[in-house]
This record gives sequence, structure tokens and C-alpha cells, in this order.
Amino acid sequence: MPIRELQYPTESYSKVNRHRERADYALETIHGIVNSCPLLHVSFQDPDSPFPAVLPMMGQMGSFDRPSAGLGDVLDLYLHSYVSARIVNLVRASSLPDSEGLPITIAATHLDGLVLALTPHSHSFNYRSALLFGHAHLVTSTDEKLYALELITNSVLPNRWSQTRIPPTPAEMQSTAVLRVRITSGSAKIRSGGPKDGDKRDLADEELLGRVWTGVVPVYTTLGEPVAGGYNRVEGVPDETEKWRKERNGEAEGFATEAVKEG
Amino acid sequence: MPIRELQYPTESYSKVNRHRERADYALETIHGIVNSCPLLHVSFQDPDSPFPAVLPMMGQMGSFDRPSAGLGDVLDLYLHSYVSARIVNLVRASSLPDSEGLPITIAATHLDGLVLALTPHSHSFNYRSALLFGHAHLVTSTDEKLYALELITNSVLPNRWSQTRIPPTPAEMQSTAVLRVRITSGSAKIRSGGPKDGDKRDLADEELLGRVWTGVVPVYTTLGEPVAGGYNRVEGVPDETEKWRKERNGEAEGFATEAVKEG
Repeated sequence: MPIRELQYPTESYSKVNRHRERADYALETIHGIVNSCPLLHVSFQDPDSPFPAVLPMMGQMGSFDRPSAGLGDVLDLYLHSYVSARIVNLVRASSLPDSEGLPITIAATHLDGLVLALTPHSHSFNYRSALLFGHAHLVTSTDEKLYALELITNSVLPNRWSQTRIPPTPAEMQSTAVLRVRITSGSAKIRSGGPKDGDKRDLADEELLGRVWTGVVPVYTTLGEPVAGGYNRVEGVPDETEKWRKERNGEAEGFATEAVKEG
Repeated sequence: MPIRELQYPTESYSKVNRHRERADYALETIHGIVNSCPLLHVSFQDPDSPFPAVLPMMGQMGSFDRPSAGLGDVLDLYLHSYVSARIVNLVRASSLPDSEGLPITIAATHLDGLVLALTPHSHSFNYRSALLFGHAHLVTSTDEKLYALELITNSVLPNRWSQTRIPPTPAEMQSTAVLRVRITSGSAKIRSGGPKDGDKRDLADEELLGRVWTGVVPVYTTLGEPVAGGYNRVEGVPDETEKWRKERNGEAEGFATEAVKEG
């Protein structure tokens, strides 16, 4: 543990302006939210489009140079894509010698609860949301690409990479693109706790208090009963998969329920 | 039911280029994905930022002029925001007489399953993802604002609006901003079904087939046991809330499991 945890600089574009008490700029918090989010929303500006592009993508943060780095260390974001995807073509076009890469923004969001209050105005969500801002580059080294693909595959199911047919074939490697995003800044915004009605008249209104249930409905992601595919030959779901699934489900439920008590 | 369902035009920025067999441009499909997604990811370009902005926001599609319109009809997207949020300031600044509003992109994504294949390359997700492109305007009519706030509140919990303290106070109305997005185009991308390994050698490899479990882990959102807030006075969670919660959980689990069989 470092004595003082690393924080991202608060730039004008990354600073949380509304509900500043919910802001967190610690690398560990932000990277933890990103790496536990199965789908990231990635945005970039295509010069040929009047609208920003937004894509759901798979990604993970890691350090190829120092694979043992922890969540609180300086990390890159690796994004999984397809060789001729629009974002990859734009990154390739922006990879001129003097270019710093394609500016992109990444959002990772977990919904943790429905916060039900006395008034519509005070309704809210419990959530953990992270934003990262950085410049995307195409990964060209085979070793770094394999590092990133293993990282991303294992984020879906622990140790999955080494249990499947590896290494990827040349055709698989050729059709897959991996982007490395050098992070410039980032922020997290977290709401936890119960409802917080702000109007004193409501909180003194016996009729209202006696009528409207207020509290939180925890929300979490469940991994359901696995369904074997058409060409599966392995009898029964592997024990370690079931163990992981049940642990994950328990943790998710516990987290969302605990979040109600905090904040 | 119209004889022919409405579809969004496929613009260069909205067209699905990769896995075109997963694309769907029907309004009903796209609007259904958006309205069942509790958090939308909204992107816009702030002229003062080198990076596009991405915000998780609450929103719902509807028609103020024709509230009985269905999901397959032409609808606007209403987004809930705060009076001095950056996006609201930009929308205000773009609301000049000749302006068409702030160009924004909205993403709504549901993760339905982890697709586990023989090779890392063939791993995938089952998902339903929608994109909308349009121009955002500030809602200034009180009636339209109330319509949108009711729509958004009731998307969290059916009939919640009329059960809480309404109407909003002048201070609540003043601090809340509602944006109306006129949709220009949109698309959906949906993956369902089991794993689809593409390499014939893998599918003929008895050792591999006997070793690697292939199939889908369904993924769905669960609404957990409600937790009463600090100033709640209503004993027990209302029956209709519990009924809705259990129905929603059953539907979510059923949907993710059924999605494995399709496609």
C-alpha cells in the first residue's frame, strides 16, 4: 500500500461538478469500477459524422510492462475490437508520427439500487460510475496483444484463457484488433445509502409518511444456470465455474445490499 | 399493428457494419431496448474539451403530443438532468433560433449472457444494444416537463409518480431540467444463441471437445430484497411493489435463458 494513494488530476472535462461529495479521483476506485464492468461504453468523434460515436466494448485495464501492477497503479486500458471496425480505422489514421492518438472517453457504470423517496424529485439510483479520458493506439506487438487478449478473456471467466484452445491462429490474430488507451484523466461518481428527501414539509407530513414506502430496492447482476451449447461434450458444468458463479452472485447481492447502509 | 413496421433510415453513422445479421432498425425493437434500460449512456461534444463527454442518465421515450403512442411509433427521447449541468448549458447555448439543437448520441445496452466457446476468439456476449442519434432541446413547457418526469419516474417503479407527493414544488421544477431529443436515426444490435466456434479443426478435435465446457451463462439484473429507509413509516413493503419485483425478476431470468435458444 502506498502511503498516499494515486489520484487522477481533475481536468475541466473530468471534474464532477454536481454532487461533488460523490466524486472520487483515486486510481484504485476508478480502475476497480472499470475492471468489474463487463461492457464499457466507448465514445469518440468520427470526423465524417455529425454525432459522436458510442460503442459497447469489452476492455480491461492492465500494465504490459509490469503485469503484477495493482488496481491503484498507473494502468493502460485495453479494448477488444475488430480489424476493420470504424474505431480501429480512425485510430490507424490518427497514428501518424506526431499524433498522440485518437481521443476517446470510456464510461463504466454499475447500477446498485433504486432509491424510492417521498417525492419524485428525491428519487435516485445507487450507482458506481467511472469515466476515463485518453488517447487510443493500435497494439502492434504480438506479445502485448496476447497479454491483452488473455486479460480480457479472463475477465469474463477466471482462468478461461489457459483452459481453451490457445494460442490464437494467425487468422484469429489478424482479424482481432486491440487498442491501448493511454489515460489522461478520470473520475468516479458513487452514490450509496438510503433515500434523502430534502423538503422539510414532506418529512413532517404524517399523512405522506404513513402512505409512501421509502427505501432502496438493491439491484445487482445475476449469473444464471449455465446452458450447454450444441456441440458441448463435457458432462455437467465444471465445478470451478459453478463455484465462481455462486461466489460472484453472493458478492453482487451482498454489495448492493451493503451499499444501502453506507453514505 | 401497422402492416409494415416503421424503421429508422440507415445513415452512415448508424449503420451496423460488423455482424450485419445482428442489426435491427425497427423503431419498436430500438425503443423497447431504450425504455427497459434504467441507465442510458449519453454522449456529446463539449467544444471546450478534447474528449467527447459521456454521461449515465435516466431517460424514457414517449410522445407528449400523443401519449398513447406505442413503442413502434415515432417517439421523442426525454432525458432527466439538472438545471446547470454541462449538457443543459450546451443545449441552452445551441438553442438559437436557427439551430437544430445539440447533436447527441444515446446508447442503451443489456447484457444477456456470457458465451463460452472452445477458443478465446469465439467467446462472446449475448446482448441487446441500441443507439439513437438526435438533437437535444430544452423542454420549456410545464405540461411537457411534467409529462416527461412522470414517464421517467414510472419507469423506475410502475405508478410511483401518483403514489408520491406531487406536484413538484416550484423549487423542484426550477432545479430539474428535461431535455427532449428529436431522433434522426437509430439502430439495434442483438446477439442471442449459443457458442459458434468457427474453426473446423477445433470442432473435430476430440481432446479439446472432451475438455472445454461450451455454452452460455445467462446474465440478468435482479431486484433484491427492499431495505426500508431511515424515515420510512410504512410497515412492510407494499404488496404491489413485491409483486412487480418478483415478476420482473422472473421475466429477466426467463429472457436471458430463452435468449440462449434463439439465434
